[in-house]
Amino acid sequence: MATIDYDYKIDVIRDKIEEIGASNVILQFPEGLKVDAMDVADRISEVVDDVNIIIDADPCFGACDLADNKVNHHIDLVVHFAHTPLPIKTECPTLFIEAYSSADVEVPIKDALSSLDDNVKTIGLVTTTQHIHKLDEMISLIEDEGYIVKLDNGMGTSQAQVLGCNFTSIKNLDVDVIIYVGSGDFHALGVKLFTKKPVLLADPFTGKSRDIEAFYDKILRVRFARITKAKEAKSYGIIISSKKGQLRFDLAISLQNLIKKHGFKAKLLNMDYISPDRLLPFDLDAFVMTACPRIAIDDSAMYKKPVLTPGELEIVLGIRDWDDYQMDEIIIHDEQT
Amino acid sequence: MATIDYDYKIDVIRDKIEEIGASNVILQFPEGLKVDAMDVADRISEVVDDVNIIIDADPCFGACDLADNKVNHHIDLVVHFAHTPLPIKTECPTLFIEAYSSADVEVPIKDALSSLDDNVKTIGLVTTTQHIHKLDEMISLIEDEGYIVKLDNGMGTSQAQVLGCNFTSIKNLDVDVIIYVGSGDFHALGVKLFTKKPVLLADPFTGKSRDIEAFYDKILRVRFARITKAKEAKSYGIIISSKKGQLRFDLAISLQNLIKKHGFKAKLLNMDYISPDRLLPFDLDAFVMTACPRIAIDDSAMYKKPVLTPGELEIVLGIRDWDDYQMDEIIIHDEQT
Repeated sequence: MATIDYDYKIDVIRDKIEEIGASNVILQFPEGLKVDAMDVADRISEVVDDVNIIIDADPCFGACDLADNKVNHHIDLVVHFAHTPLPIKTECPTLFIEAYSSADVEVPIKDALSSLDDNVKTIGLVTTTQHIHKLDEMISLIEDEGYIVKLDNGMGTSQAQVLGCNFTSIKNLDVDVIIYVGSGDFHALGVKLFTKKPVLLADPFTGKSRDIEAFYDKILRVRFARITKAKEAKSYGIIISSKKGQLRFDLAISLQNLIKKHGFKAKLLNMDYISPDRLLPFDLDAFVMTACPRIAIDDSAMYKKPVLTPGELEIVLGIRDWDDYQMDEIIIHDEQT
Repeated sequence: MATIDYDYKIDVIRDKIEEIGASNVILQFPEGLKVDAMDVADRISEVVDDVNIIIDADPCFGACDLADNKVNHHIDLVVHFAHTPLPIKTECPTLFIEAYSSADVEVPIKDALSSLDDNVKTIGLVTTTQHIHKLDEMISLIEDEGYIVKLDNGMGTSQAQVLGCNFTSIKNLDVDVIIYVGSGDFHALGVKLFTKKPVLLADPFTGKSRDIEAFYDKILRVRFARITKAKEAKSYGIIISSKKGQLRFDLAISLQNLIKKHGFKAKLLNMDYISPDRLLPFDLDAFVMTACPRIAIDDSAMYKKPVLTPGELEIVLGIRDWDDYQMDEIIIHDEQT
């Protein structure tokens, strides 16, 4: 299994520190890269003088989760690794050092193409940040087999990019099939939900492709069960997150009003770090997640009570049809630039 | 066992909301009171119009741990329950609703007095926030038995008050014995460490008193073991907290310089929520806690590596004697008013 061949770009970090004259720099790594944090801190310290390098040891879940407001305004620069920037206002400069995978895309894409019916003419193409530097290669591989490739840049994403909370790049593609190049089922699931088209996941880390249909069916069954259970709820907790790119304050307030209008109780709960144990003191029948859209889906089994997305709540309240089920997205949030 | 008979002072909260015209109010409760949070939110909502009441579901460890900077500047008022204010700059008004225990102090104080030697003439008196409204009663009880009572107000504390991180009120008491009225060993331990005098803990919840000597001996043995283990360390993590009243940034930087001067490695680690699992990615031999002084002592068994207070680090580095062991305190922090 190939791994990310990560270039921490120490020279780019040094240049930025010197450009803004930063004294206190905080480094943010996703969990998988935190083992490299001390080495990266050392390498930065070697090339700059009199700069305090602070490693943020809190979990970091994405570019939505920025450390600019930590350490009480002492921070002059955030260096955020392995995520692409989102349009978020920050209290100090933030430097994003993106991560590109060296994993091969040819083998899994060819595997995907070999499974297609003869009547497929047009293919939508999407991928995630870590493979997007190979987009031209992906397009050529598919075009060389005689297909028409269509792609789009969404709102807040670059061409052919999807995030776990942003699928705008695939919503308007008039194609027969979509190939998602990446390893995570969640992204392919979102593509499927928004397009209802056949979606093939071409995984650069396994070199294989698979149809997302079975996973899609499984997740929909789980969501249907959660929604059915939530229909018995008389009280809801609406969870908001203080993480900048995950805060949808106005949405939370409008959901509270909506729930109350339907005759149920609703409480607003803030959580910086969202976990089942933090919900234990609150005797509520169900929860609505306005923070990261992945929590309700990915962590579903961890929660005893139904944790719904805002769209799922609408189904529970009878103002959205089950046939109109959609993935939750955060396209607009409170700290939009 | 008596419990806290808690008055949530809904009328005081309503008056404050009306006075400042707050639209968005966040409520902070310590863990033991979080079960009341929804009821308190309901009671506030009943007496004010058009105010969003948000319950902070994150853990809250003290008045050092304020929610004024949460929810991205949406908050107009923090209502903080069961802790007394510390001198901390906040981004919005903060209303402290203190908690007073109705537990009887007479029986445990009389129990403490009955165990004293005949040669005891003067008694130092200290207590915690939840019993401090009974200070006059405590003084009378002791004076009525013929003793001279001495008490002091410390730096950032009120008369006869100790916090888990502030023992200034007992440092200059010239007395034979100290009576600490409260339930927690930790506070009595701090009193003992700073005074080296006999300390009796008079517990209003059990109605009994006990000498803190045995607990003091046990903790000192544990700390000696941690310090001994840390003497083998070649690398240190210096933990800072972004919690306002727990951030000692300048101290952390000076400790980093000190450790490096002694030829060892030192990394600065920020953590909003400090827990053993967040240290796992960092291959360091020992940690120095500049956040809450209680973590190193109370949570000692949870950490595989030694977690030291700044004073313990000085012993490890040979610049402080073991005989000069002291409890860590946060008297001055970064956001001092």
